[in-house]
Formats: sequence, structure tokens, C-alpha cells
Amino acid sequence: MGKEVDVSTLEAGGVRDYADPPPAPLVDIDELGKWSLYRAVIAELVATMLFLYITVVTVIGYKHQTDASASGPDAACGGVGILGIAWAFGGMIFILVYCTACISGGHINPAVTFGLFLARKVSLVRAILYMAAQCLGAICGIALARYGGGANEVSAGYSTGTGLAAEIVGTFVLVYTVFSATDPKRNARDSHVPVLAPLPIGFAVFMVHLATIPITGTGINPARSLGAAVVYNNSKAWSDQWIFWVGPFIGAAIAALYHQIVLRASARGYGSFRSNA
Amino acid sequence: MGKEVDVSTLEAGGVRDYADPPPAPLVDIDELGKWSLYRAVIAELVATMLFLYITVVTVIGYKHQTDASASGPDAACGGVGILGIAWAFGGMIFILVYCTACISGGHINPAVTFGLFLARKVSLVRAILYMAAQCLGAICGIALARYGGGANEVSAGYSTGTGLAAEIVGTFVLVYTVFSATDPKRNARDSHVPVLAPLPIGFAVFMVHLATIPITGTGINPARSLGAAVVYNNSKAWSDQWIFWVGPFIGAAIAALYHQIVLRASARGYGSFRSNA
Amino acid sequence: MGKEVDVSTLEAGGVRDYADPPPAPLVDIDELGKWSLYRAVIAELVATMLFLYITVVTVIGYKHQTDASASGPDAACGGVGILGIAWAFGGMIFILVYCTACISGGHINPAVTFGLFLARKVSLVRAILYMAAQCLGAICGIALARYGGGANEVSAGYSTGTGLAAEIVGTFVLVYTVFSATDPKRNARDSHVPVLAPLPIGFAVFMVHLATIPITGTGINPARSLGAAVVYNNSKAWSDQWIFWVGPFIGAAIAALYHQIVLRASARGYGSFRSNA
Amino acid sequence: MGKEVDVSTLEAGGVRDYADPPPAPLVDIDELGKWSLYRAVIAELVATMLFLYITVVTVIGYKHQTDASASGPDAACGGVGILGIAWAFGGMIFILVYCTACISGGHINPAVTFGLFLARKVSLVRAILYMAAQCLGAICGIALARYGGGANEVSAGYSTGTGLAAEIVGTFVLVYTVFSATDPKRNARDSHVPVLAPLPIGFAVFMVHLATIPITGTGINPARSLGAAVVYNNSKAWSDQWIFWVGPFIGAAIAALYHQIVLRASARGYGSFRSNA
Repeated sequence: MGKEVDVSTLEAGGVRDYADPPPAPLVDIDELGKWSLYRAVIAELVATMLFLYITVVTVIGYKHQTDASASGPDAACGGVGILGIAWAFGGMIFILVYCTACISGGHINPAVTFGLFLARKVSLVRAILYMAAQCLGAICGIALARYGGGANEVSAGYSTGTGLAAEIVGTFVLVYTVFSATDPKRNARDSHVPVLAPLPIGFAVFMVHLATIPITGTGINPARSLGAAVVYNNSKAWSDQWIFWVGPFIGAAIAALYHQIVLRASARGYGSFRSNA
Repeated sequence: MGKEVDVSTLEAGGVRDYADPPPAPLVDIDELGKWSLYRAVIAELVATMLFLYITVVTVIGYKHQTDASASGPDAACGGVGILGIAWAFGGMIFILVYCTACISGGHINPAVTFGLFLARKVSLVRAILYMAAQCLGAICGIALARYGGGANEVSAGYSTGTGLAAEIVGTFVLVYTVFSATDPKRNARDSHVPVLAPLPIGFAVFMVHLATIPITGTGINPARSLGAAVVYNNSKAWSDQWIFWVGPFIGAAIAALYHQIVLRASARGYGSFRSNA
Repeated sequence: MGKEVDVSTLEAGGVRDYADPPPAPLVDIDELGKWSLYRAVIAELVATMLFLYITVVTVIGYKHQTDASASGPDAACGGVGILGIAWAFGGMIFILVYCTACISGGHINPAVTFGLFLARKVSLVRAILYMAAQCLGAICGIALARYGGGANEVSAGYSTGTGLAAEIVGTFVLVYTVFSATDPKRNARDSHVPVLAPLPIGFAVFMVHLATIPITGTGINPARSLGAAVVYNNSKAWSDQWIFWVGPFIGAAIAALYHQIVLRASARGYGSFRSNA
Repeated sequence: MGKEVDVSTLEAGGVRDYADPPPAPLVDIDELGKWSLYRAVIAELVATMLFLYITVVTVIGYKHQTDASASGPDAACGGVGILGIAWAFGGMIFILVYCTACISGGHINPAVTFGLFLARKVSLVRAILYMAAQCLGAICGIALARYGGGANEVSAGYSTGTGLAAEIVGTFVLVYTVFSATDPKRNARDSHVPVLAPLPIGFAVFMVHLATIPITGTGINPARSLGAAVVYNNSKAWSDQWIFWVGPFIGAAIAALYHQIVLRASARGYGSFRSNA
């Protein structure tokens, strides 16, 4: 507010301190031979899948509790409510745009891809591939969430598999955000990123809690799970303890591999592929 | 906290590392011939309209549910509550100031314009035009929301038109924010903007959900709507599917046109107008 | 996460890319002759007063509604809850530290001043003056809130004076934040501030809504109040309309004067005083 | 969104504007002789402890109130709910990653350390020490919270010791964040940090309120506690007043010492130790 620069004058005078990129071509044959296009499509697919998994699990957890409230006045208030659901959607978009901005542009939504295509920011080919990946990712994410929430029965009926899945995906979201936020590639271009990194990382933790508190109380941090087991020392905490070490460590390992091999393409096996570009 | 610079000494010594802009004149005749003034007035009108639409729809959705709670104890808690309403107002201001700061200064409020006029940051003419645009925008936004929420009847009684309108405006808010946050003009001046972009984009998604969850469950993302239809596969999701493709695509197209033609003035038709400046 | 620089080596090697400021003296006689000290003390007093006004009004509004819930199950959920109260405190600190960081260091809390004094960041004299100003500001803020919330009676019993006070203080918070966030002095030193400005401005709007929704529904924006009056067109909205123009314009005027005369010391009357420095 | 750089081409052409750091060795003997390693381990321990204290106290306070709701319909809604608990976890991670990023990399979670170890960002030795410190910190934090919440009995049964502990830890969190956010070492490297500082400081206040409102109403600011005592002037506020001066001042003093002596290693006694590096 209060800051307004008379840009027209600058433009009229022919002086600009920025350059609009040229319009993207409708079909860019070169693009089809580049690994970066496919990496971007994969990133859109994975991001849309994570978006749907976390948000749908949040909605399921919410319904789980409001249904239960038929038998108790307080359960409804324990749920995250519309406000919590809105946070889940908004926060996940924040995290995932942050994570994928340098890879694919971070669309995660066919309407955004469509708008950017109209403005000639992306080619027709890329727009179609993105939309297909987004739709496929959405289907996978919702299917995963549904499977995860399969034991959607009366009261506390979540299975071990559901809990383990929640821990793996939840920790994947966290560690994937950590890698994206601290990537040296990103740091070199925007030197202040390390300072901003805590914000998306904190949001990642927030969103995973919104989604998985009803399932496992949210682990995604073995130190925390161990601490609670030691102090409260009840048998259930100890017998389930393995889930909160195996789940997070699998999620962290997948995130490390995804970031290092697919997104950063540092593995040797992809060297020949990349040289096509 | 803890950082405090003795600015007086610097000032007393006559050394300043900043310059106050000169006070704005009361009437600036030149200004009246520039497209940038009218673009700014349009931006204030559109921003105030969006502000009112989203916030009033949030309030209507909230009342919708608290009324329903007469017949059930849990419904009230499902609403967004005062906290959610406060988020809707604060978050929309964040998004809209972000989007319009470079165009109009992002006032969106006659009291802000008045304060900035008193401090001689804007001319009297601009202040009056802004206030008129803000009032007109506010009236349009509330009227639109009221029409949108017209079927404000018992239980789930929203019409197709209401849902389609919510999807169009909601997607417009999202895609408009995306364009504003990734504008190369802005990027050139503040090189760290791409890093910050996820924050307003995430907030845009948050706010649209707060407002339109009670109406359509909030689409604004066809991939998500398709994913849910494929996985849950119920007939209602399929018969309404078109709304969640047509609505978001219309909203995205309007946002692309608004940004490219009005705000960036890149269309040829405005070339002659701009040359007046 | 993941970024860790071995700072010791740098230090052991005698190479530092930063300088610790020298410890503040216990008593700095020069400081006592500078306008900047008194400006900082005033800023601490005003900030602590605003902090207390907004947060206490939030708590009062919350209690107001939970009391009412004795006669209805949904009222409690309509209140902002502990989460909303925590947001009010945290958000106000965010806004006020942002606004006062360049003036006083933004302590707003004797414990913070004490900690910074122990670390020799501020002189003893400054620490004592700050603490006194903070305590006085806190007393004023709570007294103002109490007076504001004086008609704390059954149901909707707020007086015109209470509503007008809420509008004046609320708009002051907003416009004061606008001025602080767009100050050219700040912009010169941290060129990315204009980009960040929407965040504290949005938070200011959020916090004022949290506090004053129960009192006036929160105006602080005459365009919005006018829009609602035109569209809903009920007599109460029109008869109270003046409050939502007079209140915000008075608040905006006080904020403009406070910023321009006290904080920026641009008025001629203070020239002679400042030349003491 | 919308911004996507074809990084592959740059890479294929052999031109990079960033450098990946070399993989961390499994065992780095040199590292073991450096104070910076132990400082990092201490920082991980303290951060994980604070993380658990604040989050567990939040959960305890929440349960405290939902239990109470057996005898009243509104109490449940007064609690922070799942949304508040998720905020507590996410917000604390934001603050603590911000505070420890320059010291230890800010892992605060064995799964994060594991992921970064797999990507060869940290040595095996460091990973093991971090995980041990995190687990120990988690145990301490939960034990502290449990002790703090020991008088977890019917209604308002918190002891003086519990309240004092909450004030000390709460103020420690706040003042520790203040020091971290305004550290000149950090400022020198990232010149825009002072501008961002209000965000983590505001979050620190938010999180401490979420956790300790049910215990003491949250002081951590003597000015505020004094103001309320003066204005409301009831005997309980005056007889407990000392807690809200002694607690915050002890917390602030510990934070100042921790930052100045352990984290900044500015005390002379550590000089000889550091020279080993």
C-alpha cells in the first residue's frame, strides 16, 4: 500500500528494467527430447498426488469425528473444522509450489496450467502433459488416501497398514520439503532462501499433523515417539514403537532418493538420457 | 527486536541513505492523461470487489451453518467461526495488496487512501477516484455474493448458477494471484519474489476454500474434481463434473485476460492510449 | 535444515564476515540528549498499549460469547477460542515488532528488554525507560479496552462510544502498519520490504477483526461498510453508517500524524529539538 | 507457479551457477575436535526439548479441557482443537529451525537427520550424535511437560511451581527466538533478516500462548501482567504478580546466557576449547 510506481512512463519512454520472456511456442519439438520436461511432468504428478493425499485424509479425519459426535457433544469441536480443511488445502499448495517451482513451475492444477497456456507461458504440449499428470496424480492421491482410510469404521478402527502408510507419506512430505528448501541449486539463485526455509518446513509439519493426528497422533519424528514411550511407558506405545521408526525412515529414504535421483538427476544412470538434451 | 539504529544522528549529520519522495500535488493534471491512473482505479475497483465477494461469502456460509445448528449441536462448530472470518478478511487483504501493490499501491480501503492523502502520498484527484472505485467495487462484490448466496435457504439449497459463479470467481482469485506473483516485471525489480510467491498463492487457495467449501466443496482445480469422481465414482460427482471444468477454465481465462490486457496493457488496442502518457 | 556452516573455523582463522556491535554502556549520557531515545520510548509505550488493547478486547469478546453460551449450545463455538486468542497475541507482536523495529528495536516486553540488557545490547538507562514505558502503555491499553468493553452486559449491549473507539483504534492499527510497512526509510535499507509489506498489513486486518467482530462486526474500511449498507439497505446500517466513516477517518488521521510527526520527526516544530542530538 | 527454468540445458552445457557441496565423509575425525560439532549437538538437544515441551503442554491443556467438557457443552470448543495442536507442532518447527539453522542445520528429528545422511549431507558420526541428542531432548521435554502438568487434576488445579515453570520456559522460547532472529552473525550473511525477524518472534508468542493459556493465562511479559493487575486490581492478580516478573526474568536470563555463551561461544572460558578447531 502507498507504493505505486508510474510504470507507464517508463514503458512509454522505452526504458524497462525487466524483460518479458518470449511467448512459448504451441509445439516445441526440442522440448520433447529433454529430460527436464519429463522431470517436470513427474514433479506435477507427485505434487498433485501428495496434495490430494494430505487434503483428503484431512477431510476423512474430520468426517470421522463429526460422525462420532452423534454420540457425544464435544467430538465435533475436536475436528479441524472447515477452517482446518481450508488450511490443509492452502498450506499444501504453499509447500508444493515452493517445492516444485524450480522444477515444473508448480502448477498442480489444470486451471492454472490452462491460464498460463493462454498467456503463452507454456507450450501446448507441455500444458497437455501437465494436465494429464495432474489428473493421474489426483486419482492416485485420492485412491491412496482412501486405501489409507479404508478401515473407516466405527471409533478408533485404523489398521497397522493405514498407520504405517500415514507415517511414510507424512515423513515423505516433510523430508521432501526439507530437501527442496535447502537445495544448493535454489540457494545459489536466491541467496536468501535458507532464511525462508523454516516457513515451508513448518507448514509441512502443520499440514501433516492436520491430516494424520486422527490416525496415528502423527509421528513423523522418531525422537518424539521415543520420548513419549519412555516417559509415559505404556505397553501400547512400546509395541507400536517400530511403526514410528520404520515408517519415518522409509519416508525419509524415498524423499532422499526422489530428490537426489529424479529431481536433481545426479544418478549416473540418467547421464546418457540427459545428454540427449 | 534488539536492532535499533540511531537514525537521528545520521539525519542530524545530513547523511541519509534514503530519499522521501516529494509530497504529491493536490491536483496533478498530467496524471489525468495517463493510462496508469485509470489502470490503478480499475485495479482498486476489482480488488475491493473480490475482497467483498470472498469475505461476504465466508460470512454467509458461516451463518448458513450456525442457523442449521438449531437442529443439531455439532453444526455450529463445523462453521469457520469468528477466527475463520477474521482469516478471510486478513488473508484477502494480504493477497490483494500483494497483487495490486505495483499497480495502484493496493489501498482497497478509503481510510487507507485518506491516511495516505493526508501524508501527501497521493494526489487529491487520485484519492477521490480511488475512494469512488472502492465504494463501487464494494457494492458490486456484496451484490455478487448476495446473488451467489441467493438460494440461502434451508440445508444444502445452492443452485447450479451459484456453484458455477463460486468456481469462476474462486479460480479467478487463484489464477490472478498466480499471474501477479510471477510477473516478470515484479521479478526484475525484486529478485526474490519467485521465492515468496508460494505464500500468497497458498493464501489464495486457503481463502477460496474458507468461502466456498459450503457451496461446492471448493473445486477451482479440475484435476482434484476428476480424481474424486474417478475414485468415489458416484453419479452426482459425474453429473456435476462439467461445473468443475467449465467454471475454473472460465475463471482462469478471465484472469489471464485481465492480467495481460488491463494490468499489463500489452494489447495493441491500448497502445495509442498509452502514448498519451 | 541441512545447512550448517562451520563457523568456528572461520572464527578461529580470524576471518569474520560480520561484526558484533560493541556492548552498550550502562549509562550513556549522550543518549539522553537525543530525540531518538524519546521517540523510541514513545514507540514502546504506544506499541504496548495497542498490543494490550487488541488482545484484551479479543479476550473480552471471547468471554462475552462463552458466557452467552449458557443459554445456547452454539455460541461457544462462535467465539475465537484459545486458538484465536493465541493468534491475537502472536499476530500483534508480529505487526508491532515489524512497525517499531527501526524505531526502538521493538521490545514491547520488559522481559525482552531485560534479556537484551543482560547481553549488553541496550544501556541501563534505556532499559529502565523502556520498561517504564511498557508498563505505562500496558496499563493504558487495558484501561482503554476495559472502557471500550465497559458495556460488557448481557447480549449485544455495546454503546456507540465503544463502537466508535473500536473503529478508531482498529483503523489506527491498520494505517499505522501501512505507514510502517511502506516507509521509504525502511525501503532504502531493505529493498525487498515492499514485497513483504502485504504480510504485516494482512495480519493487522486479521487481528483487528479477531478483536472487534463482536463489537461492530469490524468496519475499519468505509467502502465495505457503505457497500453493505447499499446492498442490504436496512435502516440500522444507514443510521450507524457515520460511525464507519468518522471512526476510520479519525484513526487514519491519527496514524498519519503519529507516523509523520512523532516517528519520522518531519514536522518543523521538532527541528530545534532534534538539532540537540 | 509459471516460472520454470530449463536447468538441464544449463547443466548439459556444463554451466552451473551453483555448486553442490562435496558429500560428507562417513567419519570425519577433524569434526570430532571442533566445538562447533558439540555446539550443534547441544542445539539439537535443546531444540528438541523445547519442541516437545511446548507441543505436549498444548496437548495436555487440550485434554484438560475436553475432559472438563463432560460437565459442560462449551468447554470442548474452548480448547485449541486439532487445528491448534497442529499449529503448535508446525509453528514450533518453524521457530526452532529458524533459530538453529545456522548452528546445527535445524534437524530436530531423527528422520530428517537420516534423510540428510542418506544424501550425504552430514557425516555418520554427526548423524548418530544428532539422533542421540534428539532422543534425549525429547525425553527431557516430555518429562518437563509432564512434571509441569503434574497437577493434572480436576478443574483449575495447577500448582505455583507449574505456573513458574511455564513462565520460565515460555519466556525462554520468546527471548531465545529474539536473540536468534537479531543475531548480527545472521544479519551479516543475509541482510534482510531483520525484516523477517518479526515473523518467527510473532510465532514464538503464538505458540507459547497455545501451550500455556490453560496454565497461567500466559504471562511471559511483565508489563502486560502489571497492567492487568493495576486495572482489574483484584487480590489474586497482585499476590501472583511476582510469578510474572520472576519467571519471565529467569527465562530471559537463561536465554541470554545460552545464546551468548553456548551458541555464540563468546565467553572467555571457551576460548581455549575453540582454539582446538
